[in-house]
Amino acid sequence: MDKHKFSEAEITGVYRAIAERRDMRHFIKQKIPADTLARLLNAAHQAGSVGLMQPWRFIRITDLPLRKQIHHLIDEERQLTANALGERQNDFMKLKVEGVLECAELLVVALPNHREQHIFGRRTLPEMDIASTACAIQNIWLAARAEGLGMGWVSLFDPKKLGALLNMPEGSLAIAILCLGHVEEFYKKSMLELENWATGKSLDAFLSENTWKD
Amino acid sequence: MDKHKFSEAEITGVYRAIAERRDMRHFIKQKIPADTLARLLNAAHQAGSVGLMQPWRFIRITDLPLRKQIHHLIDEERQLTANALGERQNDFMKLKVEGVLECAELLVVALPNHREQHIFGRRTLPEMDIASTACAIQNIWLAARAEGLGMGWVSLFDPKKLGALLNMPEGSLAIAILCLGHVEEFYKKSMLELENWATGKSLDAFLSENTWKD
Repeated sequence: MDKHKFSEAEITGVYRAIAERRDMRHFIKQKIPADTLARLLNAAHQAGSVGLMQPWRFIRITDLPLRKQIHHLIDEERQLTANALGERQNDFMKLKVEGVLECAELLVVALPNHREQHIFGRRTLPEMDIASTACAIQNIWLAARAEGLGMGWVSLFDPKKLGALLNMPEGSLAIAILCLGHVEEFYKKSMLELENWATGKSLDAFLSENTWKD
Repeated sequence: MDKHKFSEAEITGVYRAIAERRDMRHFIKQKIPADTLARLLNAAHQAGSVGLMQPWRFIRITDLPLRKQIHHLIDEERQLTANALGERQNDFMKLKVEGVLECAELLVVALPNHREQHIFGRRTLPEMDIASTACAIQNIWLAARAEGLGMGWVSLFDPKKLGALLNMPEGSLAIAILCLGHVEEFYKKSMLELENWATGKSLDAFLSENTWKD
């Protein structure tokens, strides 16, 4: 029963996008056509969501002064994170953690207010709203990679300050600043590995059968 | 600069997987080959994660009595959710919300303990761990769809009870029970829409420029 299976090339496309997706922080100056951006946003919106609550908002940042203010917020949090990291502070400050000023398109993704009205699938796991929105963002990431575009997900910011900047209501929560754009090269592996910040473990370490494995 | 763009068929594959992915609750009895399951888990593990923390664990459920206990937990929560829904209680109880006993493979996905050690990208947004793991799950969902397999993400359970059943340590959190398997048909749209439980809104309602839109 393989009638639902995609063609070999289509399957390859899906696995390639998954394997070659990178969290990009280096972009080159080239615009993204409006129809490409529309496809990416549409891909996000096709994500499933718990109880069909569609817990996402996408705010496109086109105003340059606003973009600079957002960059400033990230830079503030970057310093606070460095302080919190203690002895790794200096290594951290050497990392490029965002491409907000260079990327072609900047999007803020947020959870809306009034999420407490949604009970289906969230009574014991209210976090499912962020999970659904993360799936939507992963859709953008993979579709962008297939289109040859890079994306970076920046979470180094104070959501209250970003909320104030974007007139977000009480109860909403920004979870992502997305940088989208053309890139010179995709990193061969995670930039944090290339920069020797962290080393990924192989899948085996995370798999077990019928019970937890330490 | 389109040198990073995939082939047309590969791009189609990515967008098809995104568009045709469904939260499945109906499965047919047919096994998933071991190499297919391995590809899906590998796809999950290729997700990005905040600070490369890889905040995921995958527990494959192969023990039938354990599978039945997990099903029982979901059924308990189903009744509690129905009670919490008030006047929609009866409509809710008519919905098929999971395919735990019928699916070919059952996976529990969880966040590990000791996540508080990871500060990078999480100082102000600790929820980024669940976001990264949701991206990993979305990878399985899309790769499964390309392979012709359905997946359902069940979040109707008490994570404490599931944790006890799987000997999960304090500080860890199960966020998903994933049902994977062959399906007779993929739903034409969200099953919750087909069953008139909810109506999705179009993308326009969720988009704005430079500021929040109510």
